[in-house]
Order: sequence, then structure tokens, then C-alpha cells
Amino acid sequence: MTASKPSSRSFQPVSAFDSPRYAGAATFMRLPLLGLDASDIDAVDIGIVGVPWDGGTTNRPGTRHGPRQLRDLSTMLRPIHPATGMNPYTICNVADLGDSPVNPADVMDALTRITGFYAGLKARGITPLSAGGDHLMSYPILKALAADGPVGMIHFDAHTDLFDDYFGGFKYTHGTPFRRAIEEGYLDPKRVVQIGIRGTMYDGSDVAWGLEQGVRIIRIEEFEERGVDDVMAEARAIVGDLPTYVTFDIDSLDPSVAPGTGTPEVGGFSTREAQRMVRKLAGLNLIGADLVEVSPPFDPAGGTAWVGISMMFELLCVLAASPATRKSA
Amino acid sequence: MTASKPSSRSFQPVSAFDSPRYAGAATFMRLPLLGLDASDIDAVDIGIVGVPWDGGTTNRPGTRHGPRQLRDLSTMLRPIHPATGMNPYTICNVADLGDSPVNPADVMDALTRITGFYAGLKARGITPLSAGGDHLMSYPILKALAADGPVGMIHFDAHTDLFDDYFGGFKYTHGTPFRRAIEEGYLDPKRVVQIGIRGTMYDGSDVAWGLEQGVRIIRIEEFEERGVDDVMAEARAIVGDLPTYVTFDIDSLDPSVAPGTGTPEVGGFSTREAQRMVRKLAGLNLIGADLVEVSPPFDPAGGTAWVGISMMFELLCVLAASPATRKSA
Amino acid sequence: MTASKPSSRSFQPVSAFDSPRYAGAATFMRLPLLGLDASDIDAVDIGIVGVPWDGGTTNRPGTRHGPRQLRDLSTMLRPIHPATGMNPYTICNVADLGDSPVNPADVMDALTRITGFYAGLKARGITPLSAGGDHLMSYPILKALAADGPVGMIHFDAHTDLFDDYFGGFKYTHGTPFRRAIEEGYLDPKRVVQIGIRGTMYDGSDVAWGLEQGVRIIRIEEFEERGVDDVMAEARAIVGDLPTYVTFDIDSLDPSVAPGTGTPEVGGFSTREAQRMVRKLAGLNLIGADLVEVSPPFDPAGGTAWVGISMMFELLCVLAASPATRKSA
Amino acid sequence: MTASKPSSRSFQPVSAFDSPRYAGAATFMRLPLLGLDASDIDAVDIGIVGVPWDGGTTNRPGTRHGPRQLRDLSTMLRPIHPATGMNPYTICNVADLGDSPVNPADVMDALTRITGFYAGLKARGITPLSAGGDHLMSYPILKALAADGPVGMIHFDAHTDLFDDYFGGFKYTHGTPFRRAIEEGYLDPKRVVQIGIRGTMYDGSDVAWGLEQGVRIIRIEEFEERGVDDVMAEARAIVGDLPTYVTFDIDSLDPSVAPGTGTPEVGGFSTREAQRMVRKLAGLNLIGADLVEVSPPFDPAGGTAWVGISMMFELLCVLAASPATRKSA
Amino acid sequence: MTASKPSSRSFQPVSAFDSPRYAGAATFMRLPLLGLDASDIDAVDIGIVGVPWDGGTTNRPGTRHGPRQLRDLSTMLRPIHPATGMNPYTICNVADLGDSPVNPADVMDALTRITGFYAGLKARGITPLSAGGDHLMSYPILKALAADGPVGMIHFDAHTDLFDDYFGGFKYTHGTPFRRAIEEGYLDPKRVVQIGIRGTMYDGSDVAWGLEQGVRIIRIEEFEERGVDDVMAEARAIVGDLPTYVTFDIDSLDPSVAPGTGTPEVGGFSTREAQRMVRKLAGLNLIGADLVEVSPPFDPAGGTAWVGISMMFELLCVLAASPATRKSA
Amino acid sequence: MTASKPSSRSFQPVSAFDSPRYAGAATFMRLPLLGLDASDIDAVDIGIVGVPWDGGTTNRPGTRHGPRQLRDLSTMLRPIHPATGMNPYTICNVADLGDSPVNPADVMDALTRITGFYAGLKARGITPLSAGGDHLMSYPILKALAADGPVGMIHFDAHTDLFDDYFGGFKYTHGTPFRRAIEEGYLDPKRVVQIGIRGTMYDGSDVAWGLEQGVRIIRIEEFEERGVDDVMAEARAIVGDLPTYVTFDIDSLDPSVAPGTGTPEVGGFSTREAQRMVRKLAGLNLIGADLVEVSPPFDPAGGTAWVGISMMFELLCVLAASPATRKSA
Repeated sequence: MTASKPSSRSFQPVSAFDSPRYAGAATFMRLPLLGLDASDIDAVDIGIVGVPWDGGTTNRPGTRHGPRQLRDLSTMLRPIHPATGMNPYTICNVADLGDSPVNPADVMDALTRITGFYAGLKARGITPLSAGGDHLMSYPILKALAADGPVGMIHFDAHTDLFDDYFGGFKYTHGTPFRRAIEEGYLDPKRVVQIGIRGTMYDGSDVAWGLEQGVRIIRIEEFEERGVDDVMAEARAIVGDLPTYVTFDIDSLDPSVAPGTGTPEVGGFSTREAQRMVRKLAGLNLIGADLVEVSPPFDPAGGTAWVGISMMFELLCVLAASPATRKSA
Repeated sequence: MTASKPSSRSFQPVSAFDSPRYAGAATFMRLPLLGLDASDIDAVDIGIVGVPWDGGTTNRPGTRHGPRQLRDLSTMLRPIHPATGMNPYTICNVADLGDSPVNPADVMDALTRITGFYAGLKARGITPLSAGGDHLMSYPILKALAADGPVGMIHFDAHTDLFDDYFGGFKYTHGTPFRRAIEEGYLDPKRVVQIGIRGTMYDGSDVAWGLEQGVRIIRIEEFEERGVDDVMAEARAIVGDLPTYVTFDIDSLDPSVAPGTGTPEVGGFSTREAQRMVRKLAGLNLIGADLVEVSPPFDPAGGTAWVGISMMFELLCVLAASPATRKSA
Repeated sequence: MTASKPSSRSFQPVSAFDSPRYAGAATFMRLPLLGLDASDIDAVDIGIVGVPWDGGTTNRPGTRHGPRQLRDLSTMLRPIHPATGMNPYTICNVADLGDSPVNPADVMDALTRITGFYAGLKARGITPLSAGGDHLMSYPILKALAADGPVGMIHFDAHTDLFDDYFGGFKYTHGTPFRRAIEEGYLDPKRVVQIGIRGTMYDGSDVAWGLEQGVRIIRIEEFEERGVDDVMAEARAIVGDLPTYVTFDIDSLDPSVAPGTGTPEVGGFSTREAQRMVRKLAGLNLIGADLVEVSPPFDPAGGTAWVGISMMFELLCVLAASPATRKSA
Repeated sequence: MTASKPSSRSFQPVSAFDSPRYAGAATFMRLPLLGLDASDIDAVDIGIVGVPWDGGTTNRPGTRHGPRQLRDLSTMLRPIHPATGMNPYTICNVADLGDSPVNPADVMDALTRITGFYAGLKARGITPLSAGGDHLMSYPILKALAADGPVGMIHFDAHTDLFDDYFGGFKYTHGTPFRRAIEEGYLDPKRVVQIGIRGTMYDGSDVAWGLEQGVRIIRIEEFEERGVDDVMAEARAIVGDLPTYVTFDIDSLDPSVAPGTGTPEVGGFSTREAQRMVRKLAGLNLIGADLVEVSPPFDPAGGTAWVGISMMFELLCVLAASPATRKSA
Repeated sequence: MTASKPSSRSFQPVSAFDSPRYAGAATFMRLPLLGLDASDIDAVDIGIVGVPWDGGTTNRPGTRHGPRQLRDLSTMLRPIHPATGMNPYTICNVADLGDSPVNPADVMDALTRITGFYAGLKARGITPLSAGGDHLMSYPILKALAADGPVGMIHFDAHTDLFDDYFGGFKYTHGTPFRRAIEEGYLDPKRVVQIGIRGTMYDGSDVAWGLEQGVRIIRIEEFEERGVDDVMAEARAIVGDLPTYVTFDIDSLDPSVAPGTGTPEVGGFSTREAQRMVRKLAGLNLIGADLVEVSPPFDPAGGTAWVGISMMFELLCVLAASPATRKSA
Repeated sequence: MTASKPSSRSFQPVSAFDSPRYAGAATFMRLPLLGLDASDIDAVDIGIVGVPWDGGTTNRPGTRHGPRQLRDLSTMLRPIHPATGMNPYTICNVADLGDSPVNPADVMDALTRITGFYAGLKARGITPLSAGGDHLMSYPILKALAADGPVGMIHFDAHTDLFDDYFGGFKYTHGTPFRRAIEEGYLDPKRVVQIGIRGTMYDGSDVAWGLEQGVRIIRIEEFEERGVDDVMAEARAIVGDLPTYVTFDIDSLDPSVAPGTGTPEVGGFSTREAQRMVRKLAGLNLIGADLVEVSPPFDPAGGTAWVGISMMFELLCVLAASPATRKSA
């Protein structure tokens, strides 16, 4: 873990008692906004990053607008976790690092740009918490974070995202990121667990391939049968103490909770279940997390983004507690 | 059961790998669209039919627009059931048979037209899966399907729809279909079970009459107490092995799940509960099913229709498994 | 308890069989609309009152429009409670008493006007059921109802509303009403129970202060662990047989159920849970109730108001059953 | 003209300086709400009446909800006309007379009930200003008002509503009212002018029949060519000094202005044009007016109803100025 | 012009008097739906085609969903033009030819597929009327239609779409189609006129390049100054009697009229102006037309699609009148 | 005019060719965001400022959320004016200066804070372009800008905002700012012109008082009669060469164009008219401008904000051209 460098900057959210929550240009959690070229960038422990990109979307587009809406709703959050009492901003220096560079017109170039940005974070010892964008973005992020070897992953989703290709052989879509990541050695499939899988299937080849690699797939029916605590105990055992990434697809939640997404599947998690699951990640060796697939055009009033940013706050708290995260605050 | 006749037509959904799911004129499940006058109509085992009609609606109209929106959203479905692995299109020939004739200006004529259309299906040995439209439509459908004698019914709904009349003696509204069907001998009341009943009541005369006839009414509170599995075991026992119809009113679901309907009642089913209930119908002697009361003007973005068509896919799978359904595929 | 005076007026809802539910100017539950100056005002046992005011709102305004939309949706209700069979209108004379006077431009004057109006109700022996409006309104209502001494309170909410002040010392906001009510002796803190508390926190000073005073705070996690029945048994024990007020903040419900509110917090009650909780209030010594924080601009189609008025009907039934309520019907 | 009887009631809108415009149960223009059985009903000069009915609608229903939403939005109005300075409430006693009785399940019975209600108004010398509801309602109103002989009519609309029948011979739909009214002698076709006609046509039989009867049809293209003033001069000449009814279909306006209606046609009036046209009716011998086809499900936020009620205020002012209207205030 | 082959099929829209306009699976104008492989495809004179693709969109995506929503709204149209009395279906055989093949994951392959499809239409002598989709689609269509040499074009738009490249050299976006079409010889720039151009500019290089090539650019200010008739007279003179394509971008209209589009610019055409302009195309030598950039996620209720399909009906009528169109009906 | 100080910062909008327009935290026009305490604040010539405050709103609140939504939509703008070719960023250093401090709980304190902030701008020679917020905010801004003596004003609005008080004597609401500003000597009433006034009136006292002071009130009817050019010529003559402020209320526009506002009045400006009017301000001695009354809860999809920010760009260009504005770029 890189040591952080001193900064005179306050890494605290703007207080609602100084400025109302609806005031000011919106940054994630009302935190300071820094570029990677800021002189005190090395003082940042956890960087919240947007990935305004849906280049991997095969059906209903729109998640490129996600980071903007998530920033807007994030200003409704207060600093302290309600159940644990943790104030993550007193443990780590957290900042809004802006949006990753992307390329709306060229998928492969976008993948390169994203990997480059996250490699920069890794080089500086910054743990990333990312806001999507479609799920393909997890692939270039993992490519950067797993530069030293494959990592484990806890994956909340309605879909496995383990397909091989799409529409005439296209290999990089939001249905394929984790197949690519496993094939290319960024994920250790035996340390990958997927929770919440459901929805009608094309042919089952994604599931079959995943199982062959050793991915643990916990469908929603099994989840319902066993309950949050049992499932999460297994998930923790699967990833163990080694470096682990967390990816949370908003479509793992029920569409009544999170309608603003491109590929909803009925019968998903409630937010209570989701909160309880993420809280069970506390103490794992987490190296990063993302929340993906919030699509503002399908929920302009922002209810889905509010759910999304509420889950991101839960993720922030378990990242702040991770032994892998630098703690400068 | 009538034998089907050969057809050179492929009764498979258009593949998303050939044409994106948002492409093409929308038919139910991207299936071929046939009229009853098609030369190969007898090759169809299960016919999906719209009933674009809300002539029985006493409060907030709009379900006449339901079939169109359900077709649109149905193109988001993939062919295989996620929990059972069943692909219904490899078991039966399924087709979109268009919309039943109706009459927007004359309720009694509409009833006649609908019964006529479904009698045509019955004559051809086609099992109908219908998309409403308001709940009055189940009455003319039952009239056609029960031509040989009363059938049983499993009925998911917030309301009993067992009223006698409305507003000065009008006998045919979406609050009265099953009273008429029992009175006229299309339903055997002792083989009728209603699940999910709730919402404020006028005077209780509907419930009282139903109980007198032998209808089993399982209110939401009893459902919650006992759980899905226990309730469905009872429901299966009530209808037994004899011919049974399934009617699913979208307002049986909670309004947070399905806001696009005319008479919502808070405290309804979650989609997880509903999916689990419909899956418990597998193996029953089912002769048809419908999903009713989706009202697009109250949910133009289509979330309710997505829930509705997802439930229709569940119904399609249990119809495909029914011993009563011809299996030509 | 004041005796009621005779009235020739029928205190029955307009029947849907005489006039469709969407017809007519909307009053609460289609009841007669009386001013406090009506000659037969003393015949009223329970008065439903709007408080069109959001002068205490610190973030997203709009609840001033709540009473109008709640009246509109209330016309969808029928007279009889589905689970108990109670028809409250056959027990008590219930009426729409219009809206309390307010002052949109002066918070302190509004507080005075509201207290004055409710003092008038109390003087006439009328039990109030109020529709907000933001939560600050409960404070002037309690001030009127507790003129004879502090009362108990069962409080359903995501937030404690026990803060001291806001933004440079402002003492009267929708985050402070119950601190003021306890400080000024309108509530007995040892007979106050708050259920459903959740959401990120500023500094925890509200909770700490409440606990010091003896308020029982049941967070959502405890609620989930114990279930409705256990929690409500404790709540009943806390308030005992003494006079008790009920306040129901719509944001105690999950945002998927009730998106139309200014300060949503994910992970809230389902309507089934909420209905079950309110039904458990039956038989308590209830002196009034309110439902607050419905904000129509955040849900113009009215789904939230429908949930809100459905909860108000539940509250009406337990008020009608209260020993404290006059029963003239 | 019947003389009015004295009343101690104030027929003034509730002042926004006494009670904010969003407060209180909504009546038309915040006026007193009277039934026809009120003791001082004869003091009313102009009665504003809702007709919550869409029994004549052949395509997209919903206008039954119109009067409720128009009442809601009407509370945004202030008392004085901006261009003329007229305060109609200082000239006439104006009141909200509630909704006409209707029958949602029986078109012919509804027609009878509506005619009966308006006959009651006529008998009392009350000039009606009505809020729809679909356009078929103008037929039973005309039947009542023209009891003494055919009247003239100025008709703003995208459609002629002069069809003969619909869907197998149904004679009473919102496409046929004025053919019926001419056939049955309630309208003098030579004193009928239609302005704004446009939109694709079925077969032109409506136009042909109208022209044969002597109806003057001014299509939108002619309107645009000649301008408001020229067209309205002709319209005034056509109806002359004899009794004249005004009917304003909201779909005469452009859909960008008034999207909340069932049969929109692009290329319609702007509100500036519409206001200017209605103002040009001042001084005619007007015996009543209506505004129809506002459909809240297609515009729940109420923008269309705001336009509609703004036009109703314009109509109210020209009715107040009509020599045919009693002036008691 | 290829001669058409006989067909026993009726190329008439389903009548609203046989089946209500909201009934049935939606095809363009309720016309028969044929594939290019239909045995009687050569009987078609005008083919209406969807292009469900937004692969060229650089900002807000969603137009891939346009054809589906346009089909839905098209069922509201009646057969006869209101101003001219033309029934295009009695002049030509018009059909819905489904959607062009596209590739959501590969822009260049999509261009090839679209060109291939339209080459097939051209080979059969079918005049295409297309529904987008983003504006890049006009380029592959022009490539097919101009196989015999460059054509002229009348272009209604807020933007020139004459940019060279985007975001690091990408040459094929919805901002570049007409530069490519001019460069590659499908358009004769001296016979291209653009009407309605407005909105803030990047650098003016698009306009400069267009003017150099001889494109006539009529900005909105010039249009307003001169009026429809004068501008259209010039447009007709520019394209003359030679083969001409018409492309209508929905964003040429004012956003109040057509909000459902990705790149709105305030200050656009009214629909009255747009209708008048398209009508002025009558008699030109038109070889095809398209309407592009309707984006349903930005207007789920469909008002924009209604405007769009209304304009498509205007385009259909001028295509039916074109000397270049085969007339078999 | 204070001289600006050097800055190494680039005051250019982020280019859409470097980062897509939907990417990044939203600042006004994608400009740098500076606080008044930035070391290079004196390099700013024009500061764009949000005033997130609706403390003066008497009816429908929500404009406190305006600046956030306007920033979001502003990222859709490109740098060059379409009609004049001006790039304001090459003339002046323009920056987003964040939001003015406000106080959501205390109107008088908010007024003080706002005046203080704008006094700081004036002291630094920065010309303000402000985004509201409700119209009361113009009063404290004028108080700061007119510290050296009364200024002139061109005022686009549906309402005069010249009332004396509201609801029991409250003097500071969004209906009173300009009466206060005239009374207190910040505006020279003889150099004030109001354009677009319309909508029903309370009592006309606002107009009468304004006329007495010498304010020129051009109602919408006069505007329509005379046209933009004639009206604006008079407006320019009225303010002359002396320092002049411009205030643009979004409700001056027609509600079809700008529905997201609290007090819409039908019959307003089109955007074409509004653009033409603002362009006619070029060359006046402008010292600041504001755009007020955008209310996101009444238009969450942002169409109104898009119109608003488009008008702000027009205002920015005439401010950049003003002789009173420092030009450092």
C-alpha cells in the first residue's frame, strides 16, 4: 500500500448546515472534485469515479448518463452510516475524481482509456468506487486492478454477464465482461460468486461455461430459500482473505425498486436485502467496487439513482473498512 | 384433443442474435402472427391472443390499450425459463393469433364476438393464453371454453369480481364476470379458488355470495400467514385433475410493482411470490389462462406491462406442460 | 368527552352506485365538507383535516399540495375495512372539515393558526385525522391536543425528527417537531416510540437526545429482526392505556411504494407491514392521528397519495375504535 | 329571463390572501359548491358544471376524469380578466353546481340524466358553463337548452363531430353529437360554424353532410390564411343576435399546448389564437358554453387542464357579458 | 420504373370501423406487413421501413426504439389527407416492409446491411419511406438509392449534419452523413437545400464546408423572415425536376412540439409550418423520404412519435404523387 | 471598471471532442468552477451564479432546484452563437462561480446573504449572469449592483412582480421584488420596461402602482400587435445608454415551451420570439442578467431547463458584448 502524501485540503462533504443539500454543482457525496493531475492527488485514499459510457449495451441504451444523475442524488446523503455509526470520511480521504475518459464512438479505444485511468489510480494507491455506465466497464477496471494477478469477485446481478459473444461475434458487450476477465486472467473463477441471477435465458451457455470454470452461481430462488445471512457467509468463504472486487448491478434489485435500467428482470432483491448483503462484506480484503447500469432516461425523476447512490454509500463504508484501503484521514 | 396439422412455418421467436430485441413490428414473444384463417392455423398448439377492450370498466379506463403494450414489452423476453430450463417453443407450436374481435360501443355485442373467437380456438384444439383488457373478458372466454361443462379456476386478484350488478342493474362489468360464469354454469364454484383478495369493500355481498356457492377465498392476510407453498398446495387440491382455467389480474400484485392498472389496492403480492405461485401450477390440467387489467395510460413507460408479460411467460410454461395442451413442436 | 349534538345531515360517503367514484368535487372519503362554523359541527365525531403547508421543509418542498391530492385519491376508497369488516361511518360521524388555516409566508404565524384550529376541534370533542403537509405540522397539533398534559405517541418514520435546530439556529423545521413537543411538555418522552428509523445520519445528536429523554427508538434493522407483531406488542406496552397520538410519515414506507416524498430513505416498510402495524393499534386510547409528507410534485400520477390515503383509512378505523372517540352514528 | 332570488351567500372565489391557492377542497374557481336542491339555488346566474363521462369515446378513454382535474387547476386562477379588466364575479353570481349525473355503464341512460340536469338549470334561469367529459355530452346539453327551438353554435375543434354512426351502427359517440343535434332540431345548421378542423379523414362523409345542411366549416388552413379577426367576424355574422351556444374542444389546440386529450391532431391553435378568438365572442347572445375532451391520464401533471381552465375563464367572461345571462351580483 | 406484379392482397389499412384503432399488432398505418421474400413483394409501390438503429448517436441515445413507437402511433391515422383529399392507398400499393437489418454492435456492418436492404427495394422498384433511427441512416439509404448517380435532397433539420469527424476521427456519426454522401457522390451538393438550421455551433466548419460545396443552407432566421412559401419555392427551384430525396429530422421542429429527441434546439418549426412545407413538395420527382431522430425514452407517452408519424403521412402523400413512384392501386 | 488580474487557467468550456457532453460533474457551460476565494478570481469577467432558493414563492415551490438542473442541461450547449457567430468565451473570461449562499429557513437572512455575495462580485468587477431560483432573488441582486445609484431594467415576464405585500403583510415574496427595488432606490422606474405581462389578475394594484411610478408595461396583446422589433426598439429607447439589468422570467414563455415553472400563464412567448428579443439587447450597457423560475419538480426530464439555459446563452452573449463588461480573454 502506497503511503499517502499530506494535503491541506479538507476531504469532508459540504455540510447541509452550511449550504442546503440541493445547492452547488453536484459532486459525489458533496466531496471535493480532483483530477489525477491535482498536486495533492496522492492524499486521496478512496476515489469515486464516474464511467459515462454504455458502449457495451445491446438493448436499451442510456447508462452513459448514469454518473451525472448519481452525483445529483448523492447530495441527499448524510455522512454517517445509520446501522454501524461509521463516518467513512473520518477514516479515509475520499474524493470525487471526476469521470474516467471514454470514447463514445469506439469500444476498443474506450476500454483502453478506462484501463489507463484505473491503472493511474492503482499506481497512486487509490481504491476506486465507480459509478456506471454499463457493465462492460467492469472489465477494463478489473484489467487495471488485477495487473498483479487474478482477484476474487462478489457479483450482485440478475445476469451472469458470462456470454461469449453477441450478434455476429462481437466479444465486448455488457453481457460478456466477466468471461473476458476470466479468460484473460483478471478474475480467479474459483473466487467468483454471483448472487441474484434470474430472468429468461437465451440458451444457458453462459451459466454452463461459468460453472465449468468454477464460478459459484446463486440463483434468486436459492437466495430466497436460504436467506441473506447464509448466502453471504458462503460468499465470504469463497473469496476468503485475498483481494476481492465487488460489482453491484442495479438490475439485481427488483424493477419496482429500480426501474431506471435497461434490462430489468422481475423478482429481484429488495433494498433491505441488498443493504444487508453489502453490510456483510465488512472486513473483507476489498480492492474496489462499482455500481452499474443506472439509466436516467428510464427514470428521469431519479428514484433509481437514489437507490443506486444509497448502495454506493454502503459500498463506500465497506471499502473504508477494508484492510486494503489506505486510511489517511 | 385435436391432432395438429403439419406446417412448414417455424414457430420460433425471432432470435435476438439475428435481429435486436427492439427491432421489428412487435408480436407476442416475437412469434409468428397468424389469423384464424391462416392455412396452417391447425398447427398451432398455444395461441396468444389480445383482447383490446375495457367495456366492463367502472372506474379508471385504459386497459383496451393493454395488448399493444404487452406485445411491445414481450420482445424483451428470451426463450428459456430461468428456473426450470424449459423452452416452451420446443414443446409446442406457439403463435400470436392477433386480437379477438371486440366492439367498443356495445358491451353485449363484444361479449358475443369474444365468445365466438374463442369457440373457434377451441374447435381447432388451440389452448389460449390471453392478454387483457379488463377482467370482464374472462367471462366470454370461459363461456367458449366451458362449452362442454363447468371448469375449475385458479384466480389471482385483489378483488373477487363476484358482484351481482352495478349502477342501476348493469350485469356485465369487470366486477361481475365470475358471478355470471358461475350462474351460467361455466365455472364449478367448488373448484374455484381466489387468492390475494384485499382492499376496502362496498358491502361484502360479493364475498358472501361466493362463499355460499363454495368458492374458496384466500385473503391476503391468510396468504401471508401461510406462505406460497401451503396456499398453492390447497389450490391444487381444490381444482384437482379436472380441466382448470387460470386468471391472473395484474392488480393482485402490489401497486409498487404494477402501478399501471385501474383499481390498485395496496398490500399485494411481490413478483417473487407471484412467480412462485404460478410455477406451482405445473402439471395441472390447464385449458387456458389470461392476464388482465394492464392499463398503459397509467404507466406509459411500460414497467407494469413488463411485469405482466413476465407473468404471461410463466403462464405459457405451465400451459405448455399441461396434459390438456397439444404438443406439436 | 363532549356529547355530540343532533344533525339531520347524513355523514355517509357518496355511494359509487349513485355517482361514480371519479365524479364530483373531491372531499375526503366523499364525506360531507363542513367548516367549523357549520351549525351542526358538534355532530361530528371524527374530523378529517388537511394541512396544506410545508413551511418546515429543509430540502425538497411540495407537501403543501398533499391534502388536495389525498382528497382526490380518497374517492377510490370503499366504506368497509377488508380484514375486520368495520364500517367506520356506521360507528362515528365522520366529516371533511376542510383545511386548517396556515400562512405560507410566516412559519411562526402558521404554527399559531394551526394550533388554534385544532384547539377548536378539541373544544368540540372532535377527534382529528390529519393529512399533511410536512411533519412540522404535528407539533402545533400536539400543542392543541395536549393542552391538558403530555400525551404518548406512536411514530412511524424513517427519521426521528428530534433535531435541535437547523441552518443557523432555526428551531422549527420538519426535522425538529418532536424535540420541541417534548421540551414544551406536549409529549411524554417515556411514552413515545419511533418505528422504522433509518437513513444516513448527520451526527446522531437527534438519537442521543431522544434516548436520553426515554424515547424508544426501534430502527428498521431491529424491526426486521423481530417482526411486526413483536414490535407492536412493545409499542402498545409503551403507550399503555393513556391518551396517545399516532403520526405516520409516508417516508417510513419504502420509496418504491411511496416515491412522492421529499426525503426518501431506501429499505423501508412494505405496505403489508404498515397495514399490519396500524391494525395492531386497535383498542388503544387514541386521541388523533396524522399522515404526513406526501409530496405531489414528486408523484403527480398519485400512486403515493393512494398509499397515503389507504393508510389514512386504516388510521380512521382504529380512531373509530378508540375509547377516546365519540360515537354518534 | 327568470329573476334570481336573494341569497345571503357570498358568490366570490376564496381569496388567495385568505387561504393559499393550493389549500382547500377544490371547487371550480374556488367558488361555493351548491346542489340543485340548495335553498338559494335560484340566486345563481352562471353555474359551472362537470360532466364526468366518456361514454362516447371510441379510441383513447379518460375524459371522465376531466372535471376533477379542471377543478384542481382552476384554483390557480385569479378573479380579473387580464385584457378587459372584467371581474365576472362582480357581475353575476357564479357557483360550482357539482357534476351532472351520468351513467358509466349505459350511454342512453347517461344522455337522459344529463339532459334532465340541464333542463333543471334552464328552468331556474341558470346559464351553464360545462367541463367535460367527451364531446358527446354537448348533445344532451343542447337538447335541454334548445327546448324552445334550435340554437346557433360556434364550435372550436379539430373534428367536425358530424359523423353518422360508428362501428356497426352506433349512433351516439363523441364523433356524432352535432349530427344528432341537427337532425333532432336542437341546432340550426345555418347558424353553426366550425373552426380549426384538421387531421386525417375517414371518408369525408361528415364534412359533406355538414356542408349540405349549411354548416360553415373553416378548416385550419383557411383560418391560418385569414387570421383570427377575419374569421371571427364571419363567425359572429353567422350566428347573429339569436341564442348561441359555444363549444370548445381542447383538441382544437395544438397537441404541444394540450397533449392530454384522446384524439390529438397536429397543427392546431396556439393559446394566443384561442384566447383572441374567445374574446371576440363578447356581446353575442350566448346561452351556454362547454370545454370538453381534457383527459387527465394523458397529462397527469395537469398542463392541459391548466390550458383548459384558462379557456373556461375566457368563456366565463363572455358568458357574464352575454345579454342572455342574468346578472344578480 | 419497374412494372409491379399482381397480388391478391389488399393493400388497405385495417378500417377503424372493423377493428378499433388501438387493436391488433401495430404495423405502419395498419398496413399489411411483408418481408422482401414475400411472393407478392413486387406488387408494392411504396414500402414503409423502420431502421431501429442509433449507432451514429454521439450524445443522448434512444432512437433505436423509434420505429416501434412510430408504428404504435401510426394506428391513430385515418386514410385521407385533410387538405388535399388524397387517399394515398387508392393510388399506390403501400406496405409495411418491416425493419431494415442493422447491427447494434458494429457501425460499419450496420451501414452495409442497410445499404443492402435498400438496394433490394430499389431493384424491385419500391419507393422507400423510412422511420428512424438516428440521422446517420440516411447515408446508407442514399448510397443505395443513388447507385445510378447523385441525387438532390431537401433536408429539414436543426443541424447541417455536415461535420467531418467526431471524437478522434470517427467518420460515421449522425453529425456526418451528408458530408460522406457528398464526398462519395450520392448527393449533388448544388441540389441540396437545408432548412431550419439553428442551435449553438462548435466551430462552423460544417457550414463552411457545405457552402463551399454549393449546399444551400437556410437558417431559421431567414426562414422566419421569408415565410414558408417563399422558402419552399426556392427549395423546389434548387432540386428541380431531377430525382430528389427528402429527409426530415424531427429536431427541425420546436422542442415543445417534439421533445422526444436527442439533440433538441429551441426556436424550431411549428407543426403548421412543417405541414405546409411538406405539402409544397407535391409534384417533385421524389425517390424516397425518411423521418429520423424520434427517441422514445425521452417521450414515452408518444407525443413526439405522433408528430413524427403525422409528418410521415404528409411525406407518404407527396411520395404517392411523385412521378417517380409506381402506382399500382 | 476594475482591471482583471492574470490567470494561468483556461476559461474555455470542456470540448465535446475531448469528453462527451454528458460526461463529468456538471458546471455551467462546462466552464471552470471557482469560489470567490480562488486566487485568480479577479481574472473572471462574467460569473455565472446559481441562486438555489425559493423563499419568496407563494404557490408552487421547487425553483430552489433550478440551478442544479440548469447546470446539467448547460452541458448540451456548444460555444458559438448560431446567428451572430460570436464565441463569448473568446471575448471574456467566463466561469461558474458556484451558488450564492442562501438560507432556506429565513427569508431576510437569505436576502442579506445574496446581496453580500453579489456585492463581492461587483467589488471584483465581475458581471453576474444568474440562474434561479424564484424571482425574489432579483431584489437582493439589484440591491448589490445598484449600490451606486438606481439602474434601468428590461423585464421579460408574465407578471409585473410589483405587488406590495402578500398574505397578511409579508413584503418579500416573488410577487414583490421590483416594488421593493423601486421603493428602495435600486431601480429607476422610468427606465424599467416589462414585456409579456398577462394572466388573470388579483386587483390590478400592481399595474396601477407601476404605471404611477413610470414603469412601462407592455402586455402580451400589445406585443403581439406590434411585433418583436418594434417593441424592442422602444425598450432600448427606454433604458438608453445608462446601466441596465435584464431579468428573464421563464414564465414569460408559453407553458407549452416551458411547463416547469410554478405560475404558468397561457398565451406566452415562443422561443423564437424570445431569442429575437434578447438578441436585440446587443450593445446596451448591461450590468448583469438573470433567468429565474425554472422549477425542476414540474419538469424532471429537463425540457424547461433546456429552454432556460438556451436563453441564458443568449443573455451571456449580450453581456459579453456589453460595454460594461470587462473583456480579458
